Amino acid sequence: WDFLITKKANRNDLLINVGGGLITDIGGFVASTYKRGIQFINIPTSLLGMIDASIGGKTGINFSEAKNQIGTIAFAEMIIIDTDYLKSLPQKEFDSGVAEMFKHGLISSKIYWEVLQKTNLSINNDLLELIYTSIQIKNSIVALDPEEKNIRKSLNFGHTLGHAIESYCLDSKTLKTLLHGEAIAIGMVLEAFLSYKLCGLSENDLIAIKTTFSEIYEKCEFGDENIKSILNLLKHDKKNTHGRVNFVLLEAIGKCRLDVEVSEALIYDAFRYYA
Amino acid sequence: WDFLITKKANRNDLLINVGGGLITDIGGFVASTYKRGIQFINIPTSLLGMIDASIGGKTGINFSEAKNQIGTIAFAEMIIIDTDYLKSLPQKEFDSGVAEMFKHGLISSKIYWEVLQKTNLSINNDLLELIYTSIQIKNSIVALDPEEKNIRKSLNFGHTLGHAIESYCLDSKTLKTLLHGEAIAIGMVLEAFLSYKLCGLSENDLIAIKTTFSEIYEKCEFGDENIKSILNLLKHDKKNTHGRVNFVLLEAIGKCRLDVEVSEALIYDAFRYYA
Repeated sequence: WDFLITKKANRNDLLINVGGGLITDIGGFVASTYKRGIQFINIPTSLLGMIDASIGGKTGINFSEAKNQIGTIAFAEMIIIDTDYLKSLPQKEFDSGVAEMFKHGLISSKIYWEVLQKTNLSINNDLLELIYTSIQIKNSIVALDPEEKNIRKSLNFGHTLGHAIESYCLDSKTLKTLLHGEAIAIGMVLEAFLSYKLCGLSENDLIAIKTTFSEIYEKCEFGDENIKSILNLLKHDKKNTHGRVNFVLLEAIGKCRLDVEVSEALIYDAFRYYA
Repeated sequence: WDFLITKKANRNDLLINVGGGLITDIGGFVASTYKRGIQFINIPTSLLGMIDASIGGKTGINFSEAKNQIGTIAFAEMIIIDTDYLKSLPQKEFDSGVAEMFKHGLISSKIYWEVLQKTNLSINNDLLELIYTSIQIKNSIVALDPEEKNIRKSLNFGHTLGHAIESYCLDSKTLKTLLHGEAIAIGMVLEAFLSYKLCGLSENDLIAIKTTFSEIYEKCEFGDENIKSILNLLKHDKKNTHGRVNFVLLEAIGKCRLDVEVSEALIYDAFRYYA
């Protein structure tokens, strides 16, 4: 805001956001609130940015204790994906993006999920086709429901618990800070367990999900105190209506069920399964 | 934002903004950016709030040096007008609101302008009918053009110079800080002069405008240095495209012309006419 004011940026100017998801989220928010909204373009440089953060119109900033509580819905005029940027990405950041790609398979395409499992997901591999598929999945969901009244909620698979875990670890003195995708991968294993218990996800698919993610991401050890605090944070989540915690769960790989209410006891069981 | 987060306000909660234009502007901005937008209701308690700030969907905050540079377009679910609030309003604040009522007459209804001139505009008078007319005028303009692509610009009559004067006086050590309506009244006299020079506003109407406002508002004395700085601030205005300064002017009382380019020299003349 200060920069734009100092440079006397005008309603007809355009902001170009070059960077990871944090940058395109902040840049989109700044553009959408500067002089009641100027245009912007996103050029994501991280995998997570390319297949998730930079598309779909959600902008936001972190404020006070909670993540992404302040934001707007504002669509970029254009998003430019250049996979050359990925060559300079640390492996951990790359893996963080991979989690959201797997999520796209889990919520809407068993075929894509299986292709991802068979692919060598490495920085040195040309992933343009897969990135393109992920963007298509996200875009088609957002186009159907930009304001997240129904089907767009499916993109939150793994995020209900994942966000709470991410927030908790950020402030924790004992647990390591997690990248977004690392936290969401844990969230997906936990929520796959809930899906198995409540929505008919098969045991084989549950095991496949747990195995796939445990091969990529380090295990995180949650104590009872940690879990209690994480459940407390859940109540902060944008998607929850008073008191109740709603989940997006899987009936099968590629098929979601929205708005499933889950008891605290079952969430504890999910953490035990993950451990 | 902090309050809403601390109170664990939810996407389905509703913010009620009770206060003057500053409160409904900030409250609307906070609501429209909290969790990407929650609903809000405005209950304006000042005259300016009732007939202008609380309606029309513009929200905003002051940031850094410039006024109202950060904001969103977001409509209140409901606006409740209770003129009893006006009884506790200081006379100066009341007069500040009156300026925007006169503006509604000047830009769209000669009849309303004449009724206002004949009315005893005092806190002790029941102004509900007039307030209702002002709201109707503003609402009908906003409904035609919510995003200010054309006709909504007419609401900026008096504001191009008025805003710059208001910002300038706020920081000035020699000039007194002006209330919004006080600054806009000066802006309307200056822009009526430009209208007389460029758009065919009659000399009689120009004189009537100057006289009407000089009977309500104290004269402000601008030195050459002040005027120079005010012209500099103009370039900050949201409505100006690179370099050029565009005005909404009057062809007659009740009839606007949009996007009139004005030279600096003529603006100096306008200040001389005001003095």
